[in-house]
Amino acid sequence: MKTSIQPAEGKLGILIPGLGAVATTLIAGVAAVNKGLSQPIGALTQMGNIRLGKRTENRYPKIKDFVPLTDLKDIVFGGWDVYADNVFEASLKAQVLEKDLLNSVKEELEAIVPMTAAFDKSYAKNLDGTNVKQGTRAELAQQLMDDITNFKEQHGLDRVVVLWCGSTEVYFEESEIHQSLDAFEQALEADDKRIAPSMLYAYAALKLGYPFVNGAPNLTVDIPAIVELSKLNDAPIAGKDFKTGQTLMKTILAPGLAARALGVKGWFSTNILGNRDGYVLDDPDNFKTKEVSKLSVLEDILQPEINPELYGELYHKVRINYYPPHGDNKESWDNIDIFGWLGYQMQIKINFLCRDSILAAPVALDLALFIDLAKRAGMSGIQEWLSFYLKSPQTAEGLRPEHDIFKQLMKLQNTLRHMMGEDLITHLGLDYYQDLVEAL
Amino acid sequence: MKTSIQPAEGKLGILIPGLGAVATTLIAGVAAVNKGLSQPIGALTQMGNIRLGKRTENRYPKIKDFVPLTDLKDIVFGGWDVYADNVFEASLKAQVLEKDLLNSVKEELEAIVPMTAAFDKSYAKNLDGTNVKQGTRAELAQQLMDDITNFKEQHGLDRVVVLWCGSTEVYFEESEIHQSLDAFEQALEADDKRIAPSMLYAYAALKLGYPFVNGAPNLTVDIPAIVELSKLNDAPIAGKDFKTGQTLMKTILAPGLAARALGVKGWFSTNILGNRDGYVLDDPDNFKTKEVSKLSVLEDILQPEINPELYGELYHKVRINYYPPHGDNKESWDNIDIFGWLGYQMQIKINFLCRDSILAAPVALDLALFIDLAKRAGMSGIQEWLSFYLKSPQTAEGLRPEHDIFKQLMKLQNTLRHMMGEDLITHLGLDYYQDLVEAL
Amino acid sequence: MKTSIQPAEGKLGILIPGLGAVATTLIAGVAAVNKGLSQPIGALTQMGNIRLGKRTENRYPKIKDFVPLTDLKDIVFGGWDVYADNVFEASLKAQVLEKDLLNSVKEELEAIVPMTAAFDKSYAKNLDGTNVKQGTRAELAQQLMDDITNFKEQHGLDRVVVLWCGSTEVYFEESEIHQSLDAFEQALEADDKRIAPSMLYAYAALKLGYPFVNGAPNLTVDIPAIVELSKLNDAPIAGKDFKTGQTLMKTILAPGLAARALGVKGWFSTNILGNRDGYVLDDPDNFKTKEVSKLSVLEDILQPEINPELYGELYHKVRINYYPPHGDNKESWDNIDIFGWLGYQMQIKINFLCRDSILAAPVALDLALFIDLAKRAGMSGIQEWLSFYLKSPQTAEGLRPEHDIFKQLMKLQNTLRHMMGEDLITHLGLDYYQDLVEAL
Amino acid sequence: MKTSIQPAEGKLGILIPGLGAVATTLIAGVAAVNKGLSQPIGALTQMGNIRLGKRTENRYPKIKDFVPLTDLKDIVFGGWDVYADNVFEASLKAQVLEKDLLNSVKEELEAIVPMTAAFDKSYAKNLDGTNVKQGTRAELAQQLMDDITNFKEQHGLDRVVVLWCGSTEVYFEESEIHQSLDAFEQALEADDKRIAPSMLYAYAALKLGYPFVNGAPNLTVDIPAIVELSKLNDAPIAGKDFKTGQTLMKTILAPGLAARALGVKGWFSTNILGNRDGYVLDDPDNFKTKEVSKLSVLEDILQPEINPELYGELYHKVRINYYPPHGDNKESWDNIDIFGWLGYQMQIKINFLCRDSILAAPVALDLALFIDLAKRAGMSGIQEWLSFYLKSPQTAEGLRPEHDIFKQLMKLQNTLRHMMGEDLITHLGLDYYQDLVEAL
Repeated sequence: MKTSIQPAEGKLGILIPGLGAVATTLIAGVAAVNKGLSQPIGALTQMGNIRLGKRTENRYPKIKDFVPLTDLKDIVFGGWDVYADNVFEASLKAQVLEKDLLNSVKEELEAIVPMTAAFDKSYAKNLDGTNVKQGTRAELAQQLMDDITNFKEQHGLDRVVVLWCGSTEVYFEESEIHQSLDAFEQALEADDKRIAPSMLYAYAALKLGYPFVNGAPNLTVDIPAIVELSKLNDAPIAGKDFKTGQTLMKTILAPGLAARALGVKGWFSTNILGNRDGYVLDDPDNFKTKEVSKLSVLEDILQPEINPELYGELYHKVRINYYPPHGDNKESWDNIDIFGWLGYQMQIKINFLCRDSILAAPVALDLALFIDLAKRAGMSGIQEWLSFYLKSPQTAEGLRPEHDIFKQLMKLQNTLRHMMGEDLITHLGLDYYQDLVEAL
Repeated sequence: MKTSIQPAEGKLGILIPGLGAVATTLIAGVAAVNKGLSQPIGALTQMGNIRLGKRTENRYPKIKDFVPLTDLKDIVFGGWDVYADNVFEASLKAQVLEKDLLNSVKEELEAIVPMTAAFDKSYAKNLDGTNVKQGTRAELAQQLMDDITNFKEQHGLDRVVVLWCGSTEVYFEESEIHQSLDAFEQALEADDKRIAPSMLYAYAALKLGYPFVNGAPNLTVDIPAIVELSKLNDAPIAGKDFKTGQTLMKTILAPGLAARALGVKGWFSTNILGNRDGYVLDDPDNFKTKEVSKLSVLEDILQPEINPELYGELYHKVRINYYPPHGDNKESWDNIDIFGWLGYQMQIKINFLCRDSILAAPVALDLALFIDLAKRAGMSGIQEWLSFYLKSPQTAEGLRPEHDIFKQLMKLQNTLRHMMGEDLITHLGLDYYQDLVEAL
Repeated sequence: MKTSIQPAEGKLGILIPGLGAVATTLIAGVAAVNKGLSQPIGALTQMGNIRLGKRTENRYPKIKDFVPLTDLKDIVFGGWDVYADNVFEASLKAQVLEKDLLNSVKEELEAIVPMTAAFDKSYAKNLDGTNVKQGTRAELAQQLMDDITNFKEQHGLDRVVVLWCGSTEVYFEESEIHQSLDAFEQALEADDKRIAPSMLYAYAALKLGYPFVNGAPNLTVDIPAIVELSKLNDAPIAGKDFKTGQTLMKTILAPGLAARALGVKGWFSTNILGNRDGYVLDDPDNFKTKEVSKLSVLEDILQPEINPELYGELYHKVRINYYPPHGDNKESWDNIDIFGWLGYQMQIKINFLCRDSILAAPVALDLALFIDLAKRAGMSGIQEWLSFYLKSPQTAEGLRPEHDIFKQLMKLQNTLRHMMGEDLITHLGLDYYQDLVEAL
Repeated sequence: MKTSIQPAEGKLGILIPGLGAVATTLIAGVAAVNKGLSQPIGALTQMGNIRLGKRTENRYPKIKDFVPLTDLKDIVFGGWDVYADNVFEASLKAQVLEKDLLNSVKEELEAIVPMTAAFDKSYAKNLDGTNVKQGTRAELAQQLMDDITNFKEQHGLDRVVVLWCGSTEVYFEESEIHQSLDAFEQALEADDKRIAPSMLYAYAALKLGYPFVNGAPNLTVDIPAIVELSKLNDAPIAGKDFKTGQTLMKTILAPGLAARALGVKGWFSTNILGNRDGYVLDDPDNFKTKEVSKLSVLEDILQPEINPELYGELYHKVRINYYPPHGDNKESWDNIDIFGWLGYQMQIKINFLCRDSILAAPVALDLALFIDLAKRAGMSGIQEWLSFYLKSPQTAEGLRPEHDIFKQLMKLQNTLRHMMGEDLITHLGLDYYQDLVEAL
């Protein structure tokens, strides 16, 4: 009962709106890996194994040997940015990777020059780029489609994925123009301000039948119109917000506390970071958007509504502080007040000295490769099995999102097993204890 | 296809060798909960929920409402100790719970006076108790069986569980006398020194057909002779070593790192604690036993043999330091050196201000209640589904133990679902996305 | 050349505006100490020693045996508050000390009932008390003087000190009415809003010739008018803001880094606390006042103007977060980015699990006792030697404040030595190495 | 009354036994600074200021502009090692400094080739070098004197300092041969094993009238024979053990706690490091030597004998763990249990991510330059004013060492002021408050 999946032949274009720290770290890294200079650590598609069958079978193939993924050597990167720097220049400015490494892939990086961006300053007050397109929203969408088509032809690509690595846009809520594809396209024609730039990229990709991934906390694909287009054109979507750093740790630890029915009274999370992301989020208004998204994580995992004695009083606070001395080296400190047997209190402190873009780049790569797989497997619409990578995963209407990273992983792995016709794994394992099974 | 399970009627005796900090915290806590003074936080059997059916069904019953468990009010505690203090006196010395709370259950605790212990000083050099039995090993085993039988009659019990909360015994390896029940019983008659005191308790319990749980890192039930007896007499066993504190955190965090294919270069774990446990483990020889057990955890979860680029160089070090100022408030500090994309390094520091017995007591309770359930469900031999609670879980020969706490939880929950005839959960969930399923 | 100092005979009244967490912890503590139930840890006046003479003399008397201080048994507490709770009730609400301890001094605490407060809601928007005086500012000042005089007579006191433990007032800057005693008294008569309530207490105390201590970051005595009055009436003053918690740690650590000429690139300080103080400071406007004061500390110690290569780029950020789960247990976390030899970077992380009022109470006690000593020694005006206890020490015009706690301590100790006619200590000590001295 | 000090004219040779991580980091750093590539951060002699006169004078010259120190450009480095690697090779192996930096001073470093070492394997079991001298102890001492004299002539030096940066030797106690110069020289002739290799270097230097500094915790100069020789030949000595890392932090923090009369119940210090130093100290026997030295620090600062209520119960534990993933990046974690008002407990946790050699190199430089100053100022014997830099400072017989880094700094600075005829500083400062002074 293996799904029929198109093979990963030919070249895959990964087109990225936003060639900043994450994107350039991704591109430089893939180039370095292809030259044998480094390893794609953190990318499940490249380094991860998957258990198949019973424990006694000892089958743990690499994921890339199990499902048909695009080879890293077959990826061609391109993208758009409001600044005209080529990827080599942009990666130097980002100060994430060492100069030595960048120099070793200088030629490849210099060759990637950003196309002009579809941009609206009211969605990102802090950006001042000049490498931008002119026109109404409908015209911009058409220009983006032309960009994609031209890029594809120019590089002889077989397939394309569009991967948003741009900035967080200003917070806004969906309205009637986002409720159907029809309404959305009318609004496009009317150059309606409520269509955010990121939506233009998503629309352009899906309109051409190409998958779209949203790495920022923007609304973008979380609207009925885009979901409708995704299904109509057999082009899968995944969003939103790459899960890295403190939230990653939180979705690892909180399920562990919940597993043991330990109570949580308070969770204080603070972050210090000095990159552009930190600068933007230093503004209380922008931070509010991020905060809403970050706060929801715990509530979903701990489920206070069904565990009021354990989590009903939880006080959760998240702070982000712009702190230039750290640059891209984001650092988090969490204080967690838990309580156990008879209500006795204990504390956990976690200090994570992390690197923002180093954690995000492999997540971006995995999402691009997996959504390309989904496309070839004939899947469309929301790819909930990719929520493993996302801070605020999109779900079908009426379904609560699953934030527990271990359930997300189980979902991802069982989806892969299902695609390839392997048994799903339940970890029941009673059959290892034969006489038990007879007893049952 | 629900399993037929005997109902949890009548009284359950929980008989505990070793009425120290963990045991007295458990007993005082259950008494306080039964009086409505406190809550059994940390006990999955009392506070935990279990999801049944599809996410959209919204079925999350309490575990105690789902499977037939003994009610806390039907538990009768008893036990053995080398010191003659009653449980009230012993709990005061343990300095875990506040005096106010202890006073509120003073009468119940004073009523529990330890029976004389089967003891051999060569297995616990640091203990000097006088409340001990006399006789050969065969005679001691018989005396323990008489103790259990008398206690059962005296208190009108329906069922009994024996739960080891005693000290860590000296390290030794299994030999020919442990290979079969026959050989073991001959050695008993010969008063063979290689039968540890803890084995006498296990033998006595299982011989009478009662389940046995091993909360210490002792060999006890990890030998073929005892497994054989367990199956023969339909008396389930579970071991070994309650999983709390730093190891609990490790089996939460390590799966999270592995899930994301993040490399681990070093993991340094230090502990400070000032209770009797810490005093014993301050001796390098005793610590060695504990160390072996603690070190194995990471290797199993990270599987360096199939992920050599990520975990092949892992340097793992565990230290335990006797530090009287902290008493029972065990504290751990971990430094974890990880690496991500292109090998860039990051660090995680975890400082856990925990309380040893507060974390162990609900684990002991759950194990006792679940193994009683297993007995009533006709299960015998090793209960691998209880490895969720154990630092060094026993498995069938040839199976590697599973240390990932999330897989352990999945196993526990799916075992309960299986017992009650509910669908196992795989988190595949593709059916929420109808058109996907059609596409597959 | 010993100073002539009046003996500490008779009773000393300590009158406190603001009977909240700090004041009640102080009062209950002194009562407990006087009953022999506890010890005044943290109070230099009670527990501290002072070295006299050369190291080889081995003279380290207790400070209280060296200088003539009021005995704790001779202290009579009183005060004002906008709430009518007696000190026992108020200390229960503060949740700092254990009930057991409070019950043991219940009688003493219940006897202290706050006098009605001089209050102006526009200076403390969050307070809603009803236990307040009526009248113009001039009338209020007179009522306060009457309160003090009556209290003194009623309790047969020999001396009085007024010690501000009230809230942080709204930020404002000094104006012309604060420039001279004359202008100040005219403004009083005119009921000028620019006279803060705390100034009324200071004015009343000093007018009567009694010392005044300011434990909050309010302007209060930092104005020429009050300094003038202090000198005129031989009534010493000390302010402002009790130095505890994170700032205490900062003024310990920063001098150490400076001593070694280690560079500091960044210092990020965050605090979580859940008491009323935290609630008030959660408001960005109130926090701004506190922030200004907290930030100045590092600059004074590190002196970037004379060490630009080491401290010229220092990025210093202080955050206070209201976090109810912690109550009075204020906790701070600091990340300090330092650099050494050739600019190589290192980091220091400090996590201080402290207790706000436990640290403040002995500071308040010492200040009251030392300022009483100063009064008896004929000192008036600003007592810079008490800056050891203060976050934002007041200095003579034109002098920069000294924040280095070790220089402050040296100043305090040498002042005491000077008062008592002992040699000042320079730690030169060359005379221990006779031939050196000959060589020089 | 300014001391007469010889000017720092001509070249100063710094001859170093032990060209390992610390020495090569020092030498490479001075070369880089002389080329204008970097700054000598952490070296008080280069970066530090000193306050002169009254605060209002605002005189804060650089120390190097205040006292006549050798200019960095006038230093010539040389040394001995049991390995024949030149300093460039040795610094690459040490893995402290980046390759780029080392390459920029490659020529200078390659030019420094170690002379053969005086070595005795029984004093350092872990070392296996072959670049060693042959002969009896008397012969070795003579060879070392020849080495120094030849080096001086060859490089046209004006002055020489010998600076021990070698390994920790095996622990041993002084005996009768160390009690006088006479006995020592007889033992030399007898090739007595009780003369450690480090003593040969000290003897050779002092015999020629050159100062000697001991950066390791070895006995070396802490014996009457060497002190006698130091005075006889007007050659100052300083020892022992460079103060860096955790002990540095401890001597900063502990005086702060003592200043405030805060009690300390426990202090747990753990270290992880992966360089050769860590490897040696992983051996319990070698660690014992280090432990003794490290433990004494707190006791001296806190003085439990005169503060039994505060420090009488202090439990102090120090651990060093070999942890290869960290290399030279030594990291410490401290847990400090303190108590305040009425005995209420608080905790401080300090995590110092430091770099061993980066902290040690400027300390070594300062000691060399200051001891050369002392020599030129005619000082001989123990230089207690340099204890600021030393973990276990040598003192005159009968004097307890001073570990409080702030008193050590005061001593150092007042010594410099004294040398230059400036007023000593007492921080009394009463004269800023004119009327106070009149009152006194």
